[in-house]
Amino acid sequence: MKKGHDSSSVNKDIITRTPLPSSKKLYTKGQIFSDIQVPNRRVTLTNETYIDLYDTSGPYTDPDTVIDLEKGLTPTRLAWILNRNDTEESTASPLIAANRQHKPRRAKAQHNVSQLHYAKKGIITPEMEYIAIRETIHREQQQAAEKNPDVIKRNQRLRGNGMGASLPSIVTPEFVRDEVARGRAIIPANINHPEIEPMIIGRNFLVKINANIGNSAVTSSIEEEVEKLVWAIRWGADTVMDLSTGKNIHATREYIIRNSPVPIGTVPIYQALEKVGGVAEDLTWEIFRDTLIEQAEQGVDYFTIHAGVLLRYVPLTATRVTGIVSRGGSIMAKWCMAHHEENFLYTRFREICEIMQAYDVSFSLGDGLRPGSSADANDEAQFGELKTLGELTKIALEFEVQTMIEGPGHVPMHLVQENMTKQLEYCHEAPFYTLGPLTTDIAPGYDHITSAIGAAMIGWFGCAMLCYVTPKEHLGLPDKKDVKAGVIAYKIAAHAADVAKGHPAARYWDDALSEARFEFRWQDQFNLALDPDTAIAYHDETLPKESAKTAHFCSMCGPKFCSMRITQDVRDFAREQAAKAGDEEIQAGLKEKAKEFKEKGSELYVRNDT
Amino acid sequence: MKKGHDSSSVNKDIITRTPLPSSKKLYTKGQIFSDIQVPNRRVTLTNETYIDLYDTSGPYTDPDTVIDLEKGLTPTRLAWILNRNDTEESTASPLIAANRQHKPRRAKAQHNVSQLHYAKKGIITPEMEYIAIRETIHREQQQAAEKNPDVIKRNQRLRGNGMGASLPSIVTPEFVRDEVARGRAIIPANINHPEIEPMIIGRNFLVKINANIGNSAVTSSIEEEVEKLVWAIRWGADTVMDLSTGKNIHATREYIIRNSPVPIGTVPIYQALEKVGGVAEDLTWEIFRDTLIEQAEQGVDYFTIHAGVLLRYVPLTATRVTGIVSRGGSIMAKWCMAHHEENFLYTRFREICEIMQAYDVSFSLGDGLRPGSSADANDEAQFGELKTLGELTKIALEFEVQTMIEGPGHVPMHLVQENMTKQLEYCHEAPFYTLGPLTTDIAPGYDHITSAIGAAMIGWFGCAMLCYVTPKEHLGLPDKKDVKAGVIAYKIAAHAADVAKGHPAARYWDDALSEARFEFRWQDQFNLALDPDTAIAYHDETLPKESAKTAHFCSMCGPKFCSMRITQDVRDFAREQAAKAGDEEIQAGLKEKAKEFKEKGSELYVRNDT
Repeated sequence: MKKGHDSSSVNKDIITRTPLPSSKKLYTKGQIFSDIQVPNRRVTLTNETYIDLYDTSGPYTDPDTVIDLEKGLTPTRLAWILNRNDTEESTASPLIAANRQHKPRRAKAQHNVSQLHYAKKGIITPEMEYIAIRETIHREQQQAAEKNPDVIKRNQRLRGNGMGASLPSIVTPEFVRDEVARGRAIIPANINHPEIEPMIIGRNFLVKINANIGNSAVTSSIEEEVEKLVWAIRWGADTVMDLSTGKNIHATREYIIRNSPVPIGTVPIYQALEKVGGVAEDLTWEIFRDTLIEQAEQGVDYFTIHAGVLLRYVPLTATRVTGIVSRGGSIMAKWCMAHHEENFLYTRFREICEIMQAYDVSFSLGDGLRPGSSADANDEAQFGELKTLGELTKIALEFEVQTMIEGPGHVPMHLVQENMTKQLEYCHEAPFYTLGPLTTDIAPGYDHITSAIGAAMIGWFGCAMLCYVTPKEHLGLPDKKDVKAGVIAYKIAAHAADVAKGHPAARYWDDALSEARFEFRWQDQFNLALDPDTAIAYHDETLPKESAKTAHFCSMCGPKFCSMRITQDVRDFAREQAAKAGDEEIQAGLKEKAKEFKEKGSELYVRNDT
Repeated sequence: MKKGHDSSSVNKDIITRTPLPSSKKLYTKGQIFSDIQVPNRRVTLTNETYIDLYDTSGPYTDPDTVIDLEKGLTPTRLAWILNRNDTEESTASPLIAANRQHKPRRAKAQHNVSQLHYAKKGIITPEMEYIAIRETIHREQQQAAEKNPDVIKRNQRLRGNGMGASLPSIVTPEFVRDEVARGRAIIPANINHPEIEPMIIGRNFLVKINANIGNSAVTSSIEEEVEKLVWAIRWGADTVMDLSTGKNIHATREYIIRNSPVPIGTVPIYQALEKVGGVAEDLTWEIFRDTLIEQAEQGVDYFTIHAGVLLRYVPLTATRVTGIVSRGGSIMAKWCMAHHEENFLYTRFREICEIMQAYDVSFSLGDGLRPGSSADANDEAQFGELKTLGELTKIALEFEVQTMIEGPGHVPMHLVQENMTKQLEYCHEAPFYTLGPLTTDIAPGYDHITSAIGAAMIGWFGCAMLCYVTPKEHLGLPDKKDVKAGVIAYKIAAHAADVAKGHPAARYWDDALSEARFEFRWQDQFNLALDPDTAIAYHDETLPKESAKTAHFCSMCGPKFCSMRITQDVRDFAREQAAKAGDEEIQAGLKEKAKEFKEKGSELYVRNDT
């Protein structure tokens, strides 16, 4: 692949390839584009039903696919990109080795190849139809369930509160196009990353999560990073950011992109800083620009760019408890202060836009001044920068470059909503992408939890993508175990947000699991869990025998005290009584209640027992 | 202790006795009552400051205290109780062995010994002053900090949203009395549990958490349960419920109560059911009454009583996805259906009140019909029962019995607030005590997280105590590891709620930790963490050397990319520049900005560096 990196050193055995339990990958064809194959994961249940779940895991969980880390994944999108006939091979980046299999492309002169550009022209791309199918997952099953009057009544009671979102019942390709055209959603899909399974980030779609991976100067190897990617998407990461800062930064990224079915984000200033030996003051626009092009040609789908860290905001951070906590933000602040000059990411923003549109790299406008502690939440520095990000969004949209906005950070619960409100106000409805936020600072080691609280809330309020936080936050580099803990905590937050927003099919999954739980279909309960492995392991800690998988109790309450078992007894009993009950059995004083029980209870209870 | 339980079988070595790192127990004397010794945990920091934290861990973390599980803890409150001269020794319960050291007491005839009774009479008890001191923790330090104008400005920006709560700046004994008198807070403090360190549960105090322990028929021993208690309070459980349902239910409880510095709650119907061989239909009022008295004389501080599960509500659960999921609720439903009779806990409620007031046992009115899945949230059965609990609250308050109300369960985020609103509306401001709620059903194995989200939110909205959920929920009996995971997740939720409500000193802790973090006082960051052991272990996974404890980076970003280090460079740089900067150095175009930097930045940056 990359010269200088010996391929024999890649240990393929550490890559996880097994499908999730009782799960099979299915592919749905497009209606407009027949070569579209949209994956989902079908979980088959023991009661002869099934549920299809949104699947981020890529070909790794499909046993029929051969994976070769050296070759990378099949570049499915390449045909779509070539069909558009608006790109050409590029040799713009001298840093890309000549012998790589991936031949970088760029827009032909005077062309913009962004999904936003197509959307505004009224063009539905294969990426858009792919996304429409993907986002409409298990809607058919759910609509069938809604024929039951009890389900209709229930869904009315539970109908969500969209907080301003407009979630369609069925996601059509035209809806996808329209949301992208309005700048309200983005499809991170670099033309040089044809291996991805397209996905969308926007308030009117499923809430997404991002997992950060990447080595630092202190620890970890390329192979470990690729496995972290595979591991993160296995558990549900919708995008992955490669935040590597150590050696082999280019080669690591090459392996990650070529083997990633999800969009990859980076913070290009990290690599630029490596190029100037870690001395922030030595950064130049030229070095940064070349780095952007290098990464764009490799196939990075979105760039975090801290163009809102303006010179005048830096002093506003001086009375903060934790100053500047964004790496990129602190680097740019240092550069600004050292040169007494405005941030070149800001002054050169239009030039950056021109590069982005030539590859369809999306902006993730970085919140370099996000609060790093509750004390610094929602302060002048933070909201000043957010306003600037709003101005930059407008410019990016002029250039038809897809744009999302990064948000905090550390924010107490009562201040979370203001972040969403201000972001919508300042940033022209561009998708919001927050890191947590952490709702308290007192629990290092558990910041996946302190932040899942804030993430769930802001997801409900309209945040489109939640950047995970792992248990290692503030303490060290996350390993595989931490990546999983972070992803699961954030899938919980995102799904809880989908349910609260009233995403039309989100609760279908909850109901399927709860039904399995109530019917003591233990195996189904495990298989439907976000993390089947942990669910079954916890159960088996006390009741490992196979017979316990069909038992009508668990070790938590034991058989006599299992409320679900007793409820079923009550239902059985009600049915029996209903069958034999005559009026003479009804005691005088309880006539009314018993009648009600007969009329409603008996009939109703029977329903679930058949 | 209890006959038939060989004391030599109690393995004392498994009881955790070490203080938390860098922590020392301090005791504050009362002003009204000089024999009051209110504990707190003083964490000494490396910068020669300290912070005092609310301490639930009891004498176990005080190396100066001798612990003897056979003798139990020192019955500190006994003198206070005897002083009131309104109780007498009791032999009411034939089940209590004659040779126990604990001599049960009860109210003299015609007396009510509840804290509510005293409060309504205008009496401030030692328990009330104890609580006032306890709840006013580290207010002095915080008030000193507020002399700094930056801190004042910050606190204005961050001021909480009490959502209707009225949090006083200083908690006075009179405030405690008044809140108890209004029925808006309870002090669970059975006169037969003189070992407790009094605490309060109410919307205008710190949000509390409860940990459930207890063996089931399937697993665990008495010693393990006592250690689970000690373990739970070590990490912050404010009360503990003993939900044992297996053998030795009486002896287990005796060990737990005698050795517990926190109030103990139970669900007496569990033991009553054991007495009738597990056959719900065979339960009688007499057996239940005797069980109440037995447990009241042992010293249980609050009873969960499912008196709101009315016959007419049972059919309402028939179309639910998960029926009845409260053990007590399902038992009573079964009894009601089998007898075609109204729940005897409801019909005998006044008799129950009479027992409660003779011992000062508080009601925790059980939500037997709480939803066990998102699908069942906020339904007719749940809110019907809540309304009945409101009626019962009124009766309990007539009897001057302290009362709190249990709440759900499984509730999607957008429906959480309605639970709090309705509880306040129906239940006369009695404290709310919820189980989570879990905001999604799809993550068995992680329900401490799904529920911490809902718990934090409802805590903010006004819930007074959060009953923890462990990772083993729905899967098996929690072990020590799970107890800790549940407690920590719930301390996070409770503290996040305190911060959001604007508890006047809550954020002081966050700020102390964040300052330590920013100043690379790693050891202080660990010691201030909710769980210092995990924080340090995670850090040391990648950087175990002692020198890393003072390093200006960690393995997450490495030295070159540490934003906090760079921020400090920026501040140093700003200070140097300010010292040498002359007007000639200021470039024309940036005059204004640089001037601002000089005027504000340099001065401000210096502040934190000295």
